[in-house]
Amino acid sequence: MRFKLVIEYDGTEYHGWQVQPNGRTIQGELEQALHRMRGETTRVVAAGRTDAGVHAAGQVVSFTLERSIAPDTLAAALNALTPRDLSIRSAEVVADEFDPRRGAVSRVYLYRIWNASWASPFWRRYACHVRCRLNMEAMRAAAATLIGEHDFTSFRAAGCDAAHARRQVLRSRLDIDGSLVVYTIEANAFLRCMVRNIVGTLLEVGRGTRNSADVGEILAARDRTCAGPTAPPHGLCLAEVKY
Amino acid sequence: MRFKLVIEYDGTEYHGWQVQPNGRTIQGELEQALHRMRGETTRVVAAGRTDAGVHAAGQVVSFTLERSIAPDTLAAALNALTPRDLSIRSAEVVADEFDPRRGAVSRVYLYRIWNASWASPFWRRYACHVRCRLNMEAMRAAAATLIGEHDFTSFRAAGCDAAHARRQVLRSRLDIDGSLVVYTIEANAFLRCMVRNIVGTLLEVGRGTRNSADVGEILAARDRTCAGPTAPPHGLCLAEVKY
Repeated sequence: MRFKLVIEYDGTEYHGWQVQPNGRTIQGELEQALHRMRGETTRVVAAGRTDAGVHAAGQVVSFTLERSIAPDTLAAALNALTPRDLSIRSAEVVADEFDPRRGAVSRVYLYRIWNASWASPFWRRYACHVRCRLNMEAMRAAAATLIGEHDFTSFRAAGCDAAHARRQVLRSRLDIDGSLVVYTIEANAFLRCMVRNIVGTLLEVGRGTRNSADVGEILAARDRTCAGPTAPPHGLCLAEVKY
Repeated sequence: MRFKLVIEYDGTEYHGWQVQPNGRTIQGELEQALHRMRGETTRVVAAGRTDAGVHAAGQVVSFTLERSIAPDTLAAALNALTPRDLSIRSAEVVADEFDPRRGAVSRVYLYRIWNASWASPFWRRYACHVRCRLNMEAMRAAAATLIGEHDFTSFRAAGCDAAHARRQVLRSRLDIDGSLVVYTIEANAFLRCMVRNIVGTLLEVGRGTRNSADVGEILAARDRTCAGPTAPPHGLCLAEVKY
C-alpha cells in the first residue's frame, strides 16, 4: 500500500532531507518512525531534497507499507513518533506507481528576508536578516526577468546532478509585509541551490551593487561565476508541491 | 538623560521580565548590556512585567543614563550586546519623569492558538496547540462580553498586587488565519495572568464544556475559582503599549 504525506518541518536542526551517516535528517527521522511503528524498513522518497537548514511547509513524501493502515491513523501515529520540529499535515493512499518527485508538475518556494536595522527575535530562524534598505522596485524588476523558460546554468550549484538546466519559471515575485520581504518562486522543477543563488543575486540588485537588467545577462552567460553568492539556507521554505 | 525603548523578545528561554536571583530575565539582560556599554548601573522599568515564557513584540521600557548618547547609537550598541532572542526596535529621548507603566493609556496583548489535529513546527514556540475543532462563534460571543469596564477579580491570579480589579477592556476579538486563531485584547491595564485566565475560559467555551453566556456570570461572581484554567504562557505576546 503506497502513501503520500504532506509534511512540515523546521529545518534549523536538520542536516537536510537525505539520510546521512552522521547527522539528523528528515528522511532519517521518518524512516525511523515508520520502523518503530510497523517494524518495516521502508525507503521514503521526497518531492524535493531540501538542503541543511532549509524549511518546508508543504513537502510531499511517499513510501510503501506491506500491511494496510487507515491514512488518518498513520498520520496520527507518525506525529506521535516524530520530534516537535517535524509534523505530518495529511496522509492519503496513492497508486503504487506514485513518485512524488517525477509526478510533480510544479514546486513553490518562499525565501524570507527580514529587512530592518534590528534583527527580529521571531524571524531569526526563518528569514535572512538584511540591514540596509533594499530597493524593492529594482528587485521586483529583476525577479520578473526570470519568468518563462530559461537555461539556469548560472544559478546552478556545483554537484547538481540534473540532466539539463532548462526550467520553466511560472512565478517570481516579491511581497512586503512590514519589515518582512517574501520572495515567491514557482517552477516546474529546480536545480540544486537555484533559489538561494537567485536570491543572492536579487539581494545584490536590492543593495544597488548590481542593476536589475544584469539578471538577463547573467542568465544568458550560463556561467555560475556571473551570478551572486548563495543566500543562507534558513530563509528558504518549500511551500507547496503541485500534482 | 531618560530613554524610552520599544523592544521585542522571544520569551521561550527567559524566566520572565523581572530580575531574579537565579535564571535569565529580560530586565537582567538589558541592565547587564547597559552596564557593559556604559559602566553604569541602571534600573530598567517596563510597561508590563511579562511572565516566564511570554513574548513581546512591542514592550516599552525606560531608564536614565548619566551621560548623553544619540538614541540610534544606543539602540545599535544594545542590539550588539543583547542575545539574539532580544532586540531593540527603536529608542528615543523622553522627559525625566516618563514612567512606561503609569504613563501608558492602554496595552494590546495577542494570544495565539494553533487549532489543528497536527502540531505546527513553526508555531510551537508562539502558539498554544489545541487539537479539537474550536467553536469560533461561541468563542467570539464570549470574547465580546468582556468589552467595557468590569471587575476582573475572577480572572486575576493569586499574588496580583493591583489595588483594585476594575479594568476597561477596549477590544476583545478573535481572528482566524488558516489553522491559526488569534485573540486580541486591549485594555487600559491588566491584572496578573488576566489574559491567560480569560483565554483558558474562552477555550472551554470553544470546546463546548461551557456556554458563551457563562462569561458574564463568571465576571459577576468575582471569584477566581469560577473561571477556566490559566492558558500556557507561550501563546501570549505583548503586542503594543499606547501612550
